[in-house]
Amino acid sequence: MSVNTFGRMFRVTTWGESHGPAIGCIVDGCPPGVRLTEAAIQAALDKRKPGTSKYVTQRREPDKARLLSGVFEDDRTDGPRTTGAPVSILIENVDQRSKDYVDIRDKYRPGHADFTYDAKYGLRDYRGGGRSSARETAARVAAGAVAEAALKFLYGETVSIRGCLVQMGPHKIDRARFDWAEIEKNPFWCPDAQTAKEWEEALEAARKAGSSLGAVVEVVASGFPAGLGAPVYAKLDADIAFALMSINAAKAVEIGAGMAAAALTGEENADEIRMRDGRPHFLSNNAGGILGGISTGQDIVARFAVKPTSSILTPRRTIDRFGQETEIVTKGRHDPCVGVRAVPVGVAMLACVLADHALLHRGQCGA
Amino acid sequence: MSVNTFGRMFRVTTWGESHGPAIGCIVDGCPPGVRLTEAAIQAALDKRKPGTSKYVTQRREPDKARLLSGVFEDDRTDGPRTTGAPVSILIENVDQRSKDYVDIRDKYRPGHADFTYDAKYGLRDYRGGGRSSARETAARVAAGAVAEAALKFLYGETVSIRGCLVQMGPHKIDRARFDWAEIEKNPFWCPDAQTAKEWEEALEAARKAGSSLGAVVEVVASGFPAGLGAPVYAKLDADIAFALMSINAAKAVEIGAGMAAAALTGEENADEIRMRDGRPHFLSNNAGGILGGISTGQDIVARFAVKPTSSILTPRRTIDRFGQETEIVTKGRHDPCVGVRAVPVGVAMLACVLADHALLHRGQCGA
Amino acid sequence: MSVNTFGRMFRVTTWGESHGPAIGCIVDGCPPGVRLTEAAIQAALDKRKPGTSKYVTQRREPDKARLLSGVFEDDRTDGPRTTGAPVSILIENVDQRSKDYVDIRDKYRPGHADFTYDAKYGLRDYRGGGRSSARETAARVAAGAVAEAALKFLYGETVSIRGCLVQMGPHKIDRARFDWAEIEKNPFWCPDAQTAKEWEEALEAARKAGSSLGAVVEVVASGFPAGLGAPVYAKLDADIAFALMSINAAKAVEIGAGMAAAALTGEENADEIRMRDGRPHFLSNNAGGILGGISTGQDIVARFAVKPTSSILTPRRTIDRFGQETEIVTKGRHDPCVGVRAVPVGVAMLACVLADHALLHRGQCGA
Amino acid sequence: MSVNTFGRMFRVTTWGESHGPAIGCIVDGCPPGVRLTEAAIQAALDKRKPGTSKYVTQRREPDKARLLSGVFEDDRTDGPRTTGAPVSILIENVDQRSKDYVDIRDKYRPGHADFTYDAKYGLRDYRGGGRSSARETAARVAAGAVAEAALKFLYGETVSIRGCLVQMGPHKIDRARFDWAEIEKNPFWCPDAQTAKEWEEALEAARKAGSSLGAVVEVVASGFPAGLGAPVYAKLDADIAFALMSINAAKAVEIGAGMAAAALTGEENADEIRMRDGRPHFLSNNAGGILGGISTGQDIVARFAVKPTSSILTPRRTIDRFGQETEIVTKGRHDPCVGVRAVPVGVAMLACVLADHALLHRGQCGA
Repeated sequence: MSVNTFGRMFRVTTWGESHGPAIGCIVDGCPPGVRLTEAAIQAALDKRKPGTSKYVTQRREPDKARLLSGVFEDDRTDGPRTTGAPVSILIENVDQRSKDYVDIRDKYRPGHADFTYDAKYGLRDYRGGGRSSARETAARVAAGAVAEAALKFLYGETVSIRGCLVQMGPHKIDRARFDWAEIEKNPFWCPDAQTAKEWEEALEAARKAGSSLGAVVEVVASGFPAGLGAPVYAKLDADIAFALMSINAAKAVEIGAGMAAAALTGEENADEIRMRDGRPHFLSNNAGGILGGISTGQDIVARFAVKPTSSILTPRRTIDRFGQETEIVTKGRHDPCVGVRAVPVGVAMLACVLADHALLHRGQCGA
Repeated sequence: MSVNTFGRMFRVTTWGESHGPAIGCIVDGCPPGVRLTEAAIQAALDKRKPGTSKYVTQRREPDKARLLSGVFEDDRTDGPRTTGAPVSILIENVDQRSKDYVDIRDKYRPGHADFTYDAKYGLRDYRGGGRSSARETAARVAAGAVAEAALKFLYGETVSIRGCLVQMGPHKIDRARFDWAEIEKNPFWCPDAQTAKEWEEALEAARKAGSSLGAVVEVVASGFPAGLGAPVYAKLDADIAFALMSINAAKAVEIGAGMAAAALTGEENADEIRMRDGRPHFLSNNAGGILGGISTGQDIVARFAVKPTSSILTPRRTIDRFGQETEIVTKGRHDPCVGVRAVPVGVAMLACVLADHALLHRGQCGA
Repeated sequence: MSVNTFGRMFRVTTWGESHGPAIGCIVDGCPPGVRLTEAAIQAALDKRKPGTSKYVTQRREPDKARLLSGVFEDDRTDGPRTTGAPVSILIENVDQRSKDYVDIRDKYRPGHADFTYDAKYGLRDYRGGGRSSARETAARVAAGAVAEAALKFLYGETVSIRGCLVQMGPHKIDRARFDWAEIEKNPFWCPDAQTAKEWEEALEAARKAGSSLGAVVEVVASGFPAGLGAPVYAKLDADIAFALMSINAAKAVEIGAGMAAAALTGEENADEIRMRDGRPHFLSNNAGGILGGISTGQDIVARFAVKPTSSILTPRRTIDRFGQETEIVTKGRHDPCVGVRAVPVGVAMLACVLADHALLHRGQCGA
Repeated sequence: MSVNTFGRMFRVTTWGESHGPAIGCIVDGCPPGVRLTEAAIQAALDKRKPGTSKYVTQRREPDKARLLSGVFEDDRTDGPRTTGAPVSILIENVDQRSKDYVDIRDKYRPGHADFTYDAKYGLRDYRGGGRSSARETAARVAAGAVAEAALKFLYGETVSIRGCLVQMGPHKIDRARFDWAEIEKNPFWCPDAQTAKEWEEALEAARKAGSSLGAVVEVVASGFPAGLGAPVYAKLDADIAFALMSINAAKAVEIGAGMAAAALTGEENADEIRMRDGRPHFLSNNAGGILGGISTGQDIVARFAVKPTSSILTPRRTIDRFGQETEIVTKGRHDPCVGVRAVPVGVAMLACVLADHALLHRGQCGA
C-alpha cells in the first residue's frame, strides 16, 4: 500500500505540505556508486522554481535542497557517490503567506481538492492546499534528479529525458518547426519559437483577465534500450500513465499516437521494421516506443493534458463545509498556466519510471 | 514488485498464456461475507467471450470458469460467501490452434509484442502471443466480477459500473443520442443506435479488406461516495490510468474532459457546486468525478483509446529474430476492432480499482 | 498489502483450502531461462506428502502437481524453460473426508485457528481447517522447487538448501554425530542415526497415547555468495524469520547461535576472519552466515521450533461459537509430530527467500 | 520492494546514517484525526537516548525530534492532529566523532556489517557504521510513538505495549518477582529488582573488561482485540518475527512459549478456553496471544535475543578490504549490553506491527 510512494525498485516517497516547515523526498533503491551532488539536485529544482517570471506563481521559494543521506565521499569515491542507502532530500518552505488562505478555510474552491480532502479525512490542512498543493512536485523534481543520475550511471551520458509544452489553451505547436534547442529560450518550454510568441500573448491576456489556460506537455526519453518494462501489470506505458496522471491537474495521458490511434487503420498504425546499421529500425513511432508494455529501443514518447488552474479571479459558485451555498474568488499567487511548470515535473516522473524499470529489468533478466 | 499483480488491498494476480492449458486469476483481499457464485463470474466472462459474432475473433473458447477457493457455503451463509481467503478462478483453454502461429515463431509482427518480449527475455512463448495475448483479459474480467460483487456488498445494489464504445475508427457517437439501454442491443456496446449502424458498415468494410479499426471505450461508475482515492501516489485517477493503460492495445487514457481540458479556460473547466436535496451537487463534470485524486461523489468517467489491431492481412515489412529483413501477413483469427471486446475489460478494471480504494479508504479512514 | 503473497522480486502467492477442490501457487518473478519441469516440482512435493508412514497423517493425497503456465519448450529451449511469465501450479485435493470435521463446526479447538478466524472474519471454512490447514504448505513446497531451480540457474548446481530435525520433544540430536547423509534414511529427517531410534520410540509412545510432540527444524543454505540481503527492512535474517514463522505451528526462529547468543560474551560471539585459499574464511559461525542483514558467504543457518499439534485425543476444555463452555476431542487424521513434515516446508521457504534476495541484489547491485 | 520501509498500511520508512547530518522517518498511512505532538515523540526518543548512564554509549545525542509534516492544528482540531498525510520526523545528528572510526575504514570488524556492506555495495559509509549503526533505531522509536498514538486513537487509552529485559548474559529474571512497576526504577528495564542488582555487577565487570553481554528482551501488548493479523503471509507472529529480527544484533525471536514449545506435549501446549465475564478466557498463554497468525485477545507476548556487541576492546583477528590478515580493537563509544537500549526499540516495532494490522483488519473486515 503505497499512498505517498511510487516505484517498485526505485522507490520515491514524498512528504510535506505547502505551508508546513519543509517538504522532501526519500529515494530508496538507488544503486550504489552513482555520482550524486546537491548541486545536481539544485539544478533540477531551479527549473521548476516559482517566482522566475510573470507567467508563474509569484511565491518566492529558493527551493534550496539539502541532501541528508545516502551519499558518501572519500578519496576512493572521486566525489560523492550513492551507497545504496536511502537518499533523503529536504527542501525548506520559506515564503508561506498563510493569511492569503483564510477565505478557503471553510469554502471549497471548485476544481480543487478542498471538498474531497474534507470528504475523505474529515479535516484538512487548508493552508496553500496542504498536501494537495503543486508544491509537492518540487520533491518529485528532486527525486527525478536522482533518477537521471542513476540512468546515466546505468546507460551512459548519452541517454536523455526531455520535456516541452506542445499546446497551450487551444494553441498547438507546429510540428514542422519542432526544435529542442528552443525550449530554454522562452519561458514556456516551447519547442517552436513562433508559437511561443502566440502563447505569450494568449497567456498575458489570460493573466490580465484573471483567467487561466490549460496545456499539453510532451516528454521524450531517448537512447534507452529495448526490453525495459514488463507484461501485464508492470507495463512501461501503464506505469508512465500512472506517473503522469498523478501530477496535479493532469486529466489525460497519451503514449505515442495516443487518442489519435483510435482513428487509424491497422495498416497506418503498426510501425514497420527494417534493419539499419545492423540494428532494428522502426519506420514510424505510433507506438511511442513501447509494445506489449516493453520498450522497443525507439524514443519513448508520452503526453499529458493539464487542466487550467481553478484558482481564478472570476467569482465561482460553490458551497462551504457547513453545506451552505456561497461564492468564491481565489486570490493568492497562482500560475496562469500550470502546464508550464509541469514540464520539469513530467520529465522527473518519466525519469523515475525508467530508473525503476531499469533496475527491475536487471533484477529479473540480469541485464 | 508486482509484475502480474495489481491493487493494494484488493489484489488481482493473473497468470496463463494464450495457448497454455489454462489461464486464471487470484483475487486476494476480497472482504469476507460477499456473495459470490461461479454463475456470476460466468455471466461476466460471457460478455467478452470470443466467437460470438463475426465482428470478434472466431476462436471458440467456452471460457468456463471454475471457482476453486475463497468461498464457503453452509446453512448459515445463505449461498456461497467469500471467507477472506484468496479467490482462485481457473479458465481452461480449449481451442488453441497453435499451428496458425508457426509463421510468427521467428518473425516479429509489427505492432505486436513479439520483438520486445524477445528483447527482454531472450525466449518467448509465441503461440498465440503467449502472455501478451488479449486472452489474458478473460482473467481480468473474472476478477472484475469479484470486484463488482464486493462493491455491491459494500455500497449496495444501486452502484453500477458500465462501459460503452464512443468511437470506432474516425466515427464518434452523437452524445445527444447517448442511451445506456442501447448498449446490449448491438454487437458493439454502442450507446447510440444510429451510430451503431454506421459502425457496422465500417467494420464490415474493414473486415473484408483484412484491415482493422481503432476505438475509444468509455467507462462510468455511478453511485459511489465522495472520499475514495488518496493523495499523490494513490490517486484514483492515476490508478485508473494505470489500470486502463495496462489493457492490451490501449494508447491513451482520459479522465472527465480529458485531452480537451487543455483547451478550456479556468472558468469553463472548474465544476461549480450547489446544494441539491441536502447534498453537494456539481453543475458540470469536467473533473470526471475526481478532484485531487479523490472521488467527488459524481459519476466517475474515464475513456481509453484502443489502437487498431496489427493482425491484418496486408503484408507488412518487418525483421526476424536473426536480424533479417522480411515481410509478414498475420493470419489467425482476430478481431477487426479489438476495442469492442475491450469494453467489458475496461469495466472490470474500473471495478477492481474501485474495490481496491473502497477497502483502502475503510482501512485508513474507517468508513 | 500481501496477505497471501510473499517476496519482493520472487513473489509467491498461495491459495486454496484443505477441503476445497484444489490448492496451488503462483510464482511471479522467476527469471527467464530456468529449466523447470513438472517432475522436479513433483519430486519436492513427494517429500512432504501425507500418508507415507505411520508417523504422518493418514490422509492420502497424491499431491499431483500440474504446471499450468510460465514455461515453454521448443527445439531451441532444450526442455521446458521459464519465460519470465508467472508460474502457476495446481494441486488437486482428492481425499477430503469432511465428515470428520462436523464436530468442529461450532466448537473451537484449543491451539487451533478456529476461534481467531471466526473472530476476524465472522465465518470460516471449518472443513479440515480451511485456509489455516497445513495442507497450504504443499503449495509452498511447490514454490520452493521453483526457487531451487532458479537458484541453481543463477549460482550453479553446487548450491544447496537442506533441512533436518534437530530436536523432537525434549530429545535433541548429538551434534557430534551430525551427518547429512542420514536424513533420508529415517522417517524423521534426523541427521543422527542413534537419536532417530530414540525419536521412533518417543513418537510411537505419543501416537499411541493420542498425544503429540513438538520439534525443532534446522535449515542450512550452502554455497551462496556474500552480499545477499539488504539493510534495515529487507534484512536476510528478518526475511527468514518471517518466512519460517509463517509456517503453521512455528513458535520461534533462530539464526546462527540464536537464543544462545544472549548468554555469550562479545569475545565468544564475534566470528573472527582469516584468509583461506584467497578468500575470507570465518573461524566460527555464530552469525549463522548473516551480518547486518547481509550474507557473509558462510553457511546460512536457521532453526524454527514447531509446537506439538493440538489435534490430540485427550479431551480439552473449550467454548463454542455461541459462547458456551464445552469439551472437545480432535479426531481426524493428524501427524503426531508436525515438525517432521515441516522440514521440507522450511527448506522451501529458505529457498524462496534466497531466490528473492538473489534477484533483488542483482537488480540493485547488478551482480 | 521495501528495503527501508516496512508495514502494509502503516508504512514506516527510515533514512540516515550514523554520522550524516541527520536521520529520520516517514510514517505513511497513519489515520487522520490522531492526536500527535512533537512532545510525545520526544518522550519516546528520550527512552533510548544515548549518554544517559554509564551502561550505554557515551555518545551525547540530544535526539531532538522535529515533526515536519502530516499534522495540523486549528481551533477545530483541539491540538495537533494527523491529517492522513505522511508524517515526517527528522532528528539531527550532533555528536559525530568520525575520527574515532579511521581505524575501521579498511578493516572489517568481526561481528559487524563492515564486510557484508562492502561485499554487497562495493563502497560503504564507514563512519560510525553508517546505515548499519544502531543509531537508525532512533527513527524506529519515533515511528513507534506515532504508532502508539494511532493505536490509542483506535482502541482507547487502555491498550499498552511494554518491554523489559528478561535476561542479561546468562542471568535470567525470576518470573515470580516480575513487576512492571520496576522497569523504570533501574537502568536496565529489569522487571525484577533483585536481578537488576546482579545485572549491575555483571555489566560493570564486562564494561571494565572491555567485553560485552548479550540479552533477551520481552515485549508485551495488552488490551488488543481478537482478530488482528491475517492468514499465511501476513501472520501477526510472522510480522512480529520480521520486525524484531530486523533490530540490530537480534539473533532469535520467540512468540509465547517460543523454543520451549518444542519440548511440550500437545496436552501441555494447547491453551484451554473457558468463559469469564461473558468473554472467552484462556487458561494459559503458550500461544503468546496468537493462533493461526491472528490475535486471540490475550496478551501478545514476544521475545528476542540480542547478541553481545562485537565492539569490544579485546583484539580480534580479521582481514582488511585488500584481503590482508590483520587484528582489530574497536574503540569508540559503545554499549556494553546493547540489549538495554533495544527495549524501547522492540516496543516501537511491536507498536508499528499492531498499528499496521489494526488498519489492515479495518480495511479488510471493516472493524
